[in-house]
Amino acid sequence: MSKTVTFEQFLTKDPLDNYGDIELYKSKYLPLIKKYNQRLEENILDEYKIDLPKPRDELIAEQFDAVDYLYKAKLLTEREFEITDSSATKIVSEIANGNWTCAEVFTAFAKRATIAHQFTNCAHELFTKEGLERAKELDEYYKANGKTVGPLHGLPISLKEFISLKGKVTHGGYAAFVENIAEDDSVTAKILKDAGAVYYIRTTQPLTLMQLDSENNYSGFTKNPFNLLLSSGGSSSGEGAVVSFGGSTLGVGSDIGGSIRSPAGFSGCHGFRPTTRRISNFGNVANYTGQESVSPVTGPLGRSVSDIELFMKTYINEGKPWNYDTWSIPMLWRDVPKPKADQLTIGVVRDDGFVRPSPPIRRGIDVVVSKLEAAGVKVVPFVQKNAKLAYETVHKMYTCDGNDESRSLIAKSGEPIPKLTKWSLNYGDGARVYTAAENRHLNTIRDDLREEYNKFFMDNKVDFILSPLYNNVAPHSGEVYNWSYTSIFNILDLPTLAFQTGLRQDPELDVWTEEDKKHVYRSDLEQLENENYKPDEFKGAPIALQLSGRRYFDEEVLASARLIIDDILKVDLFKH
Amino acid sequence: MSKTVTFEQFLTKDPLDNYGDIELYKSKYLPLIKKYNQRLEENILDEYKIDLPKPRDELIAEQFDAVDYLYKAKLLTEREFEITDSSATKIVSEIANGNWTCAEVFTAFAKRATIAHQFTNCAHELFTKEGLERAKELDEYYKANGKTVGPLHGLPISLKEFISLKGKVTHGGYAAFVENIAEDDSVTAKILKDAGAVYYIRTTQPLTLMQLDSENNYSGFTKNPFNLLLSSGGSSSGEGAVVSFGGSTLGVGSDIGGSIRSPAGFSGCHGFRPTTRRISNFGNVANYTGQESVSPVTGPLGRSVSDIELFMKTYINEGKPWNYDTWSIPMLWRDVPKPKADQLTIGVVRDDGFVRPSPPIRRGIDVVVSKLEAAGVKVVPFVQKNAKLAYETVHKMYTCDGNDESRSLIAKSGEPIPKLTKWSLNYGDGARVYTAAENRHLNTIRDDLREEYNKFFMDNKVDFILSPLYNNVAPHSGEVYNWSYTSIFNILDLPTLAFQTGLRQDPELDVWTEEDKKHVYRSDLEQLENENYKPDEFKGAPIALQLSGRRYFDEEVLASARLIIDDILKVDLFKH
Repeated sequence: MSKTVTFEQFLTKDPLDNYGDIELYKSKYLPLIKKYNQRLEENILDEYKIDLPKPRDELIAEQFDAVDYLYKAKLLTEREFEITDSSATKIVSEIANGNWTCAEVFTAFAKRATIAHQFTNCAHELFTKEGLERAKELDEYYKANGKTVGPLHGLPISLKEFISLKGKVTHGGYAAFVENIAEDDSVTAKILKDAGAVYYIRTTQPLTLMQLDSENNYSGFTKNPFNLLLSSGGSSSGEGAVVSFGGSTLGVGSDIGGSIRSPAGFSGCHGFRPTTRRISNFGNVANYTGQESVSPVTGPLGRSVSDIELFMKTYINEGKPWNYDTWSIPMLWRDVPKPKADQLTIGVVRDDGFVRPSPPIRRGIDVVVSKLEAAGVKVVPFVQKNAKLAYETVHKMYTCDGNDESRSLIAKSGEPIPKLTKWSLNYGDGARVYTAAENRHLNTIRDDLREEYNKFFMDNKVDFILSPLYNNVAPHSGEVYNWSYTSIFNILDLPTLAFQTGLRQDPELDVWTEEDKKHVYRSDLEQLENENYKPDEFKGAPIALQLSGRRYFDEEVLASARLIIDDILKVDLFKH
Repeated sequence: MSKTVTFEQFLTKDPLDNYGDIELYKSKYLPLIKKYNQRLEENILDEYKIDLPKPRDELIAEQFDAVDYLYKAKLLTEREFEITDSSATKIVSEIANGNWTCAEVFTAFAKRATIAHQFTNCAHELFTKEGLERAKELDEYYKANGKTVGPLHGLPISLKEFISLKGKVTHGGYAAFVENIAEDDSVTAKILKDAGAVYYIRTTQPLTLMQLDSENNYSGFTKNPFNLLLSSGGSSSGEGAVVSFGGSTLGVGSDIGGSIRSPAGFSGCHGFRPTTRRISNFGNVANYTGQESVSPVTGPLGRSVSDIELFMKTYINEGKPWNYDTWSIPMLWRDVPKPKADQLTIGVVRDDGFVRPSPPIRRGIDVVVSKLEAAGVKVVPFVQKNAKLAYETVHKMYTCDGNDESRSLIAKSGEPIPKLTKWSLNYGDGARVYTAAENRHLNTIRDDLREEYNKFFMDNKVDFILSPLYNNVAPHSGEVYNWSYTSIFNILDLPTLAFQTGLRQDPELDVWTEEDKKHVYRSDLEQLENENYKPDEFKGAPIALQLSGRRYFDEEVLASARLIIDDILKVDLFKH
C-alpha cells in the first residue's frame, strides 16, 4: 500500500517521482526560459553594475565574502552606504521629513541589489527603471501634497518571485508558467504598494518551493553573500541573499517548512515566520492549493527586529488584509513593550533528539545562553519528546495529495527535477495519495503535538523557546536535507524569528571534538548531515538561531527579540 | 467511482450506510441505555416535578403550547417567575450585589428546567441535587469573601451532552459511549465553571450530530416547547427546548451546519454561531476529529442578545481558551457600541434559489424588512449565485472521509440509525472515501465562495446579511431535510445569529397563495420541504431569521442585533 522511499533507496537508486519529459522541455520551454533570462540580463543597468574581482566560479571556489568586499572595495559611495545601511524605520522617517528623496534612496538600493545579484544570483527579475519611475512619482506626490502615501513611502522592498505582480510574468519557479502573466497584484503586493513600497527586484526560489535551498531551471543556485561557496538557503533564497547583502530594506518571503527562516539565517539577516492567517498568501503562485494541515505563511526578512515590526504593523493595521482575503484574521498588531530581562523565561533546545547540531551551532547556543543568563534571563532546558513524530507527520502533510499538484505542474513542461526537489517529493509516502480520513488523522497528531508544546509553555511558565535554526550553518549548495529544526514550528504554527547571533563560523574554533567523534549516529539522516560539516568549508558563515513564542503571540516574540538581539547580544546588521 | 445516493434512491430504497447489528445492540447496549435513562428518571426530584395536564401523547397530538401553559397554570411561584424571567445579566448583578442567593436562583431554574424536560424531553441527564450543592458553595464563598468567583457567579447554565464533564458519562449521542466516563472537563465546561456557572442539566442531541433534529437511541425526539407536535430543532436539540422554555439562563450548543441556530430559532430563543476558533471545542465527544474543511463551532443560546454578549465576552476575555486549546485564537472580545439605524446597510436574502421559504418565513422577512426600513436602515437585496454549489460542497466536506469515523462509532454498538442520520450519512458521496487531493479541491471551492461573499460585503458596503434560518418554521419531528439556509454560513464561516422576530406562525395568515401554487419546483428537495408545510400543523411556531456579519466581526453582529431586536423589533423573550 505505502510507497515509502527509504533514505537508502534515495541515495542509491534512480529516484522515483521523475515526471520529466526532456524532449518537451528542450523544444518548448528551455527557449522560453532563455528568453526570460535574457530580459533579466538586459535589465541590469550599466550604472548599477560592477566588474567582479575575478570570474564568479573562482570566487565561489575560494569561499569569497562578497559583503566584506563591498565595503573594502568601496563599491558604493559614502552617501549610498549611509542610505543602504540605514534601517527601514530611519529611511521612511527621513523621507517623511523631507530630508531624503525616494529617488536617491531608490538609486542606492538599486545599485546594491544589482551588485548582490551579480555575486549571489538572487534575482529572477530586475526592473530598476520602473522602480525609479515609481520612486519619482512618490517624490512628486510628496511635493504636491506635503505628505506621504503611507508608512512605507519610498521604501525599496524585494519580493519573492511567486508573489504576483500585475502584468508581469509570475512563474513561481515552474517552467510551465514561463509565460504566465499575472492578472492582478497579489494581496501582499497590493498592501505594501498602497503603503508606499517601491518594487524593483523579484527574487529566486527553488522548484516546488520545497527546498531549504534554491535550485530551479531558471537560475540554478543562489549563493550566500558571506561565503559564495555556500547556499543562501531557501525557499525564499533570493530574499535571504539580497536582504543580507543590504540590497533591499525589507524582503517578502514565505515559509511552510523553514523557507523564510533558513535563507534569512543562512545568508545573514533576520526572518520572521508569523503565525498563520496574519499575512495574506492570496495571489501567490504556488503548489499547495487547498492544503491546510500545515499552512504556508508569508512574512518579512530584514536587518533589524524593529524593521520587521514596521512591516508587520503597517501590513496588518494599515493594509487590513481581511478586506481582500477571508483567510486573514482581523487581529490588529498590538504595540508590546520590550520586556525586562529578569521577567523572561526561555526554554532552550540544544538537540532535537533527531539530528545533532554541528560545532558552530552549538557554540552559538552556548554564547547566547550565557549572555542571556548574564543579563538575568531565566533559561531552562527543553527536551523535545516528539521531534521525530512531528518531522514525519509534517512530511506526510506536505505530500499527502501524492504530490498531485506539484507533479502535474512539473509534468506540464517536462522540466528536469533538481535533486532537492526530488528529495522532498519523496517525503512522507511520496506519490501515494492519502485518503481524506488519513489526512484527518494527521491533523489529530498535529493537534496533540500542539497541546504538548502548549502545556510546556503553560506548565513551566516559559515565554519563548530558543533553538537551532538547522543542524548546521549555511550548507553547500544542493546539500541541505534535514528540516526538523524549522518545520517543527510550522506544524506547531508558532511565530518564530530566525535571528543573527552576530557570530560567524570559525574553522579554528568550530571543530568536532574527540568526544563528538564517538557519537553513535541516531539515523542515516544525522550521519549525512553531520558528515557534511567540515570546518574548513564553511568559513565565515553566519550563525543564526530561532526564537519562538506561543501561537498568535507574534508581537511578544518581536518585542523580546528587540531586547535579546539589540540589547543583550548587541547585534547590529547595519554595521560592518 | 462515486457512490452517490440520489434523493429518489433515498426515498424509495432501503438506505445505504446501515451499519447496525441489532443483536449486539439489543443484548449489550440497550440494557445499558435503559439503565442510563433510569438514572435520569430517578434524578427528577419530586419538588421540581409537575403533573402533566394530559398524557404527553395527547399533548403532542393537539399541538400543545407548553410555555403558555406554564404561565396560565402558574406552575411556578411569582418569585420563581421573577427570577427565571430575568436576563442572565440581571441575575449575575443581583447575586453580585447580594440581593439574590445562588441557591434561590438555582432552585427556580431547576424547577423550570425539570418542567421543560417533562414536556419536551430535553434532558439526557439531570443532576439538580449536585447543582444545588454547588450553588450553596458559591453562596458560602460570597459570604466568606465578599465577592464573586467570576462574572457568571451562580448562573445556571445548560450544556449539550457531548461537552465532557469530569467523572460523568459523556456519550455524545452514541450508544457505544454509554459507559464513557469523561476524565476531564472539556475546556468550555472548565471556563464557564471557573467564571461561576452552575451545571445541572445536560441536553439531548441526535446521533452523529448531523440532524437539524434530535433523534437518537437514548431519548428519541425532543419537542418544541411552543408546539409539542413540532421538533425542537437540532443538533443542540435539548438546548433549544430548555433555553426557550426558560429552564436555563444560557445554553451551550455547537454548530457545524446549523446546530445552534436551528434549535434556537425553531424552539423560540436566540442562538449565536460565532466565527470559528473563538470558543473551544476541546473535550467535546464528537465525530469530526481532524476535519477542518468546515469546522464545528461551540456557542451560546439565550433569551437576549445582551446575555449572549455576556457569554462571549466572559468566555473569551476571562476564560482565555487559548491557554488550554491552541485551536483557539487569542483575540479579545471587543466592546462595540450599538450602531445607529441610518448607519446600517443590510443585504436581504429572500430565497436562496434552491428551496423556497414557506409563507410564515416570508411574512417574517417582510415584517422585519419593513420595520428596518421604517427605522432608517438601508436594505438591499442579496441574490446568492452559488447557494447550490455551497450546499453540495459542504455536504461533501462533511462526509468526505466516507463517514469513516461516525460509521465506526455506530458499528461499535450496532445501534439502529435514525432516519435523519441516515439522510446525512448519504450527503455528498456517502460512503465514498475522498482522496486528500479531492479534499483540498473542496477547500478551494470553499475559498472561492468566501471571496464571492466578501466581495459582496465590500463592494456594496453591506454590513450584514439578513436571511431565513430555514425554509420553514420548526418542522415535524423527523422531517427536516434542507440545511441550505444555515450551512451556507458554516462553509463561509460567518458569525451568525439566529434570532426571534417576535412573530409566531398563524394558520390563518400563513397560507400558500394561488400564486404560490403555480410554483414549479426547482428540485425534489424543494418539493418535499414545501409540501411538508401545511398551515394547520405549525400552530404558533416561532418565526426566526438570521443575521450574519463578516468573518470575525462577531462583536458587530451582536451590537447591531441589539439595535434590531431590542429597539426596532422590540422583541423581549422574558415577557409572556
